[in-house]
Amino acid sequence: MQEIEYIGYAAGFLTTLAFLPQALKVFRSKKTRDISLLWALLMTFGVFLWFCYGYANHSLPMMIANGITFVLMLVILVFKLRFK
Amino acid sequence: MQEIEYIGYAAGFLTTLAFLPQALKVFRSKKTRDISLLWALLMTFGVFLWFCYGYANHSLPMMIANGITFVLMLVILVFKLRFK
Repeated sequence: MQEIEYIGYAAGFLTTLAFLPQALKVFRSKKTRDISLLWALLMTFGVFLWFCYGYANHSLPMMIANGITFVLMLVILVFKLRFK
Repeated sequence: MQEIEYIGYAAGFLTTLAFLPQALKVFRSKKTRDISLLWALLMTFGVFLWFCYGYANHSLPMMIANGITFVLMLVILVFKLRFK
């Protein structure tokens, strides 16, 4: 595997990990008042497109990172819409 | 330009735009109590690595999006460290 893929995996690990506390907090507290719906919508759709971009460029680091972040964002978005 | 680059630019536009409200809010309010330092550190370093990954893969959409997000994250991080 090329060295550059390691950078991709490291980047993906960090930015995906960064979302975990927020997703867990929302999941546990069911409180989403402080979370902007606009932010959640932009990020959810944005990381989905990054996933497609990674797929088209055969970039596994991008697909894994953005795939997981997409799921985390969906959790946040669904809770935001349900619990307002 | 290949169609796939348009997806990259759209993805970058959305995920970068998503950071703007947060960065502006911090810049105006100088309040960062609700922002996790860990999140800010992980994201700042993570998007920097995505920038390097984009550079190594000659992906302009990734370089532009992660370059701007990196600057926005630096603003949030500096304010977080200064105003606690």
